[in-house]
Amino acid sequence: MFDHIKKLPVFDWGKTYNGEVFTADLVAAIIVTIMLIPQSLAYALLAGLPPQMGLYASILPLVAYALFGSSRTLAVGPVAVISLMTAAAVGKLALQGTAEYAAAAILLAFISGVMLLALGLFRMGFLANFLSHPVIAGFITASGLIIATSQLKHIFGVDAHGHNLLDLILSLVAHVGEINWITAAIGIPAALFLFWVRKGLKPLLVKMGLGPRLADILAKTGPVFAVAVSIGIAAFFQLQGVALVGSVPQGLPALALPTFDLELIFALAGSAALISVIGFVESVSVAQTLAAKRRQRINPDQELMGLGASNIASAFGGGYPVTGGFARSVVNFDAGAQTPAAGAFTAIGIALATFFLTPFLFYLPKAVLAATIIVAVLSLVDFSILTRTWRYSKADFAAVATTMGITLIWGVEYGVTAGVLTSIAIHLYKTSKPHTAVVGRVDGTEHFRNIDRHNVITCDEVLSLRVDQSLYFANARFLEDKVYDLVARNKELKHVILMCPAVNEIDMSALESLEAINERLHSLGVKLHFSEVKGPVMDKLEKSDFLQHLTGKVFLSQYHAYQELAPHTCMPATASSVAAK
Amino acid sequence: MFDHIKKLPVFDWGKTYNGEVFTADLVAAIIVTIMLIPQSLAYALLAGLPPQMGLYASILPLVAYALFGSSRTLAVGPVAVISLMTAAAVGKLALQGTAEYAAAAILLAFISGVMLLALGLFRMGFLANFLSHPVIAGFITASGLIIATSQLKHIFGVDAHGHNLLDLILSLVAHVGEINWITAAIGIPAALFLFWVRKGLKPLLVKMGLGPRLADILAKTGPVFAVAVSIGIAAFFQLQGVALVGSVPQGLPALALPTFDLELIFALAGSAALISVIGFVESVSVAQTLAAKRRQRINPDQELMGLGASNIASAFGGGYPVTGGFARSVVNFDAGAQTPAAGAFTAIGIALATFFLTPFLFYLPKAVLAATIIVAVLSLVDFSILTRTWRYSKADFAAVATTMGITLIWGVEYGVTAGVLTSIAIHLYKTSKPHTAVVGRVDGTEHFRNIDRHNVITCDEVLSLRVDQSLYFANARFLEDKVYDLVARNKELKHVILMCPAVNEIDMSALESLEAINERLHSLGVKLHFSEVKGPVMDKLEKSDFLQHLTGKVFLSQYHAYQELAPHTCMPATASSVAAK
Repeated sequence: MFDHIKKLPVFDWGKTYNGEVFTADLVAAIIVTIMLIPQSLAYALLAGLPPQMGLYASILPLVAYALFGSSRTLAVGPVAVISLMTAAAVGKLALQGTAEYAAAAILLAFISGVMLLALGLFRMGFLANFLSHPVIAGFITASGLIIATSQLKHIFGVDAHGHNLLDLILSLVAHVGEINWITAAIGIPAALFLFWVRKGLKPLLVKMGLGPRLADILAKTGPVFAVAVSIGIAAFFQLQGVALVGSVPQGLPALALPTFDLELIFALAGSAALISVIGFVESVSVAQTLAAKRRQRINPDQELMGLGASNIASAFGGGYPVTGGFARSVVNFDAGAQTPAAGAFTAIGIALATFFLTPFLFYLPKAVLAATIIVAVLSLVDFSILTRTWRYSKADFAAVATTMGITLIWGVEYGVTAGVLTSIAIHLYKTSKPHTAVVGRVDGTEHFRNIDRHNVITCDEVLSLRVDQSLYFANARFLEDKVYDLVARNKELKHVILMCPAVNEIDMSALESLEAINERLHSLGVKLHFSEVKGPVMDKLEKSDFLQHLTGKVFLSQYHAYQELAPHTCMPATASSVAAK
Repeated sequence: MFDHIKKLPVFDWGKTYNGEVFTADLVAAIIVTIMLIPQSLAYALLAGLPPQMGLYASILPLVAYALFGSSRTLAVGPVAVISLMTAAAVGKLALQGTAEYAAAAILLAFISGVMLLALGLFRMGFLANFLSHPVIAGFITASGLIIATSQLKHIFGVDAHGHNLLDLILSLVAHVGEINWITAAIGIPAALFLFWVRKGLKPLLVKMGLGPRLADILAKTGPVFAVAVSIGIAAFFQLQGVALVGSVPQGLPALALPTFDLELIFALAGSAALISVIGFVESVSVAQTLAAKRRQRINPDQELMGLGASNIASAFGGGYPVTGGFARSVVNFDAGAQTPAAGAFTAIGIALATFFLTPFLFYLPKAVLAATIIVAVLSLVDFSILTRTWRYSKADFAAVATTMGITLIWGVEYGVTAGVLTSIAIHLYKTSKPHTAVVGRVDGTEHFRNIDRHNVITCDEVLSLRVDQSLYFANARFLEDKVYDLVARNKELKHVILMCPAVNEIDMSALESLEAINERLHSLGVKLHFSEVKGPVMDKLEKSDFLQHLTGKVFLSQYHAYQELAPHTCMPATASSVAAK
C-alpha cells in the first residue's frame, strides 16, 4: 500500500512542474471546460439524471485522477457509453426522476470505483485483454446506434422508452402522433448545425488561414455555441411546451457518503463490474494512443487505481460513473496539456460554472443537448468492423456479430457479456483440436517438415508427429485419437516420436492421455519417444513417474531421434546430401 | 437423420449374431441382473425416489442403449453420482415422497435425454473434454463422501437432510439422540459384511481354488446375499420401528409421457445439462477403457445418442436419469458379454423381477440398501489426486481443490460448475501471457535457440523474437509490451524479426496489435519482419492489408532472414563452421 502511494504519478510530474507547464495546462483546461459543460449536461440527460449531476461528475473525479492516474493527458468525466450503461443498470431498479434513481447512480459509481481500485491493487489489469478489439468495436457501434435513437425523443419532444433498439423504435413509432413541432424546430436545426460544425467547419477555418489544430479545437466548441444561441432563443420567445432543462441548483453539493443498502449493492454489482471493465478498456486505449504520440507510457494497473479513485470521488461528490473520454482527451492533448494538473484546473472551471452558469441553463432546451449527443455518438458508429472481420476471420466476425446483435436486441449489458463469452468460447473451440503434423526429414538437412506440404523422407518403422500447441485437458483426448488412428494405418510401425518444439505446457489431463498412449502403444509392440521437449515441460515431467514408465526415450532433437531409431532405412542419404549442399 | 439410422451399431453386431454369442450374453445378463436388483433399489433410495423407480430405470434404458449405443459391454442404469445429482436437482423444487418429486425426476430424465441426443446429432461430444481428468477425479471423490454421509441416516435410523457435507454432518449430529438401535444393529453389520465381501471374499475364494474372475464376480453378488438375509430376518422377527422398503407395486408401469410443464422444464434445464455431461463423461470413460481391452472402438457421438435414447426411454418407462455404470459394466465385461444384447436380456431379467420379486421387498430394511451404497461409493473416494496434482502442477491442484471444496461445501452442482470454470480460467490465464524467447543462431548451424539457455550468436542490429504460441485477443497486448520493452533497451536496433514456427493462428485483435507494433517501430526507424510463418496463417494475413503496410519482409526461414538482414555482423562464421562440422 505505502509502496503504491510513494509511486503515485503525481510525485513524478509534480517535481518538475513550472510556470511554462502551468500556462500550457491552463490553456488546455479552459478549452476542455468550455467543451465539457454542454457534454456533462447532455450525458446526465442520457443517463436519466438531473443535469447538475453531470457537472458534479466533472469536478472531484478530475482531481482524483490528477492524483492517481498515470496518463498525462486523459480527460476523465461522464461519457456516452457509460451514461447509457448507467441508465440501463439503474433503470431496472428505480424510476427516472426519483431520488432513489439518483441515489442508485451514485452508489453505482462507488461500487464501480471500489472494483477498479481492487483490480488495480491486485494487478488484474490484464483481465481487460479478454475484451477483444472486435468485440469492443462492435459494442461501441451498437451502443452508438442505441444512444442516438434514444435521443430522438428529445429532438421530437415525445415520450419514448427502452434500453434496446427495437423497443426504442417501436416506442417512437407509437408516439409519432404526439410530435412537438416547436421542439423539433429547435432540435433538428441544432443537430444539422452540429453535423456541419463537425464536418464542414474545420476545413472552412483552415481555408480562412487557421492552423489545423486550432481549427479542430474551435470546431469542437460548436456545441457551446448551439447551447448559447438556443438558450437565447428560448428565453427571448419564452417558448411554451418545449422541454427545458429547468432550474438547476446553484453551487456545489455537500460531500456525502452514498447510501449503503446491501440489497441495492448486490443488485448493482453485476452492472458495476461491466461498467468498470468497459470504462477501463475505453479509457486505457485512449490513454495508450495519446501516450504513444509523446513517447510516454501508461501503466494499466495504475490506470485502474486512477479510475477507481475518480469513481469513488464522483460518488462522494454527488456524481455518477465516469471514465476517460475519447473526444475530450484528444482536445486536451491537442490543446497542449502537459500534466494531469490540466484536469484539476478543468475541475475548478466546472465548479465555477455551477456557481455562475446554472441560472442561464433554465432556458436550455433538452432537444439541443440531445442533438449534441446524437452528433457525438454517430461519429463512433462504424460498421466497417463487420466487413473487415468477415474478410479476415469468420470466427472474429461471429464475435462481432454476436456482440452487435445482442446489444441492439437485448441491450448493452447483455451485448458485451455475450461478446466476451463468444470470443472465449471460439478461442477454446479452436484450441480444443490440437494442431499436429506428421513430419519427415528434408533431404540433406537436419530439418523435419510436414509430409503434406514438403517433399520429405519418411520410413515405415518410425512415425514422427509434430505437436504444434500446448497440451491441456480440452485437446489431450484428440491427440490420443490422432495417434491411435495413425498407428492403426501402419503395420510396420516400431516407433512413434512426438516432436514437441511448440509444447509450452502439458497439464495433468494431458499427462494422463500420454500415459494412456504409452500403454496402448506398448500393448501393440510400439515404443513411444519424445523429441525437442522444452526445459520447463521436461522439469515437470520429471516430477511425475511418467518417464519411468515410458517405453522409449526423450531426445534432444528430432534429428538425434532419427539417427538412433532409424539409422538404416531413413538416414543413409544424409552424409552424401550434406556434402552435395 | 436416415444416415444415422443406417449406421446404428445394432445393424453391425446384429449381422453376425449366433448361438455362441447368445449364450455368452445370456450368462452375463443373469449375473448383471442379480447385481442390479439391489443396486437399482438402493440408488432410487439415494435419489429420494420410491424403490420401484430404480427398477423401472433398469428396463427400457437398457433396451434403448442396446439399439443406439456404440459400446459392446457398457451396462446402463441408475448410478450413484447421477442419483445424488437427481436428488439435489429435484429436491430444490419438490418435497421427497410427493408425486411432484417423482414427476420432476422423470421429466429430468427426459430433458437430459433430449440434450444428450441433440449433442450427439450435432457432434458436440468434444464438449465433454472441457471436464478435465483432475476435475472429474476431485468431483467423484467429493461426491462419494457426500453420498456415504447421506446414507448414515438410514444406517442409524435417524432423520437428517442436506445436499452438502457440512449440512449433512450438522443434521446427523443434531439427531444423534434419536438413533434407532435396532436399525443400527442391522445396518452396521450389513456394512461391515459388505466391506469384508469387497476386500476379503475374493482372496478367500481364490485360495479355495476358484478362478480370479469368477471369484470377483461372486464377490460382487455380496449385496444380494445381504439383501436376502436381511429380508429373512426382518420378516421372521417382524421387526418394529425399523424403516423397511414397504409395499412396492407389482409388475411394469404403463408407458407414459412425462408431464410437460414449461416452468418446470426451465427450472430443471441447468441441472439436466450438468447431469448429461457428468453422465456422459463417466459413461464414455468406462466404455473406452473396456473397448480398448478388446481392441474395439467406441464413437463418442454415437454414445451421446445411445445415452440420450436411454434417458428418454427411462422417462417414458417411469424411471429417472441413467448412465453407464462403472462396477456393473466391468462385471458385464468380465462375465463375458459380447454384444449390447446382454443389456436387453438384463432388462428382461429386471422386468421379471418387478413381477416376482417385489412382494419379498416389503421386508427389506432401508439400512441394508444404505450399506450397499456406502460400500460402493467409498471405493470411488481417492484423495491421491490431491497429492499427485500438487506434485505435478499447482494449477491442476487448484482446479481439483476448488472442485472438491465447493462440492463438499455447497453441493455437487456448484462443485462441478466451479471445477470447469476454474480449469478454463486457469487455462486462459496461462495463455494470456504468450511464451516468447529472444533467439540467436547456434554457431555452425541453421538453428536458432533461446539466448538465455544456449550459447548463441546475436547481433545488435537484429532482434529475433520467437513466438511460441498462437496470438489472440488475450495475449496480443502482452506481445506489444514485450516488443516495446526489448526495443527500448537497444539503440542500435534496425530490424525486429518475429519468428513464428508455433503460431497456428493470428486473430483480428492480434493482427491489430501487430499493426500497432509495425507503426510504432516504423516511427523509431526499426523495420518489422516475420519468419517461418505457417501456410494457413500466411493465407489469412494476405486477406488483410497488413502485408502492404509491413515495413519489412516475410522470410521462409529464420536463417534466410539472417542471411539477408545481417550478412556482415552475424553471418561470417557460417561457411567455416559448417565445413568444420
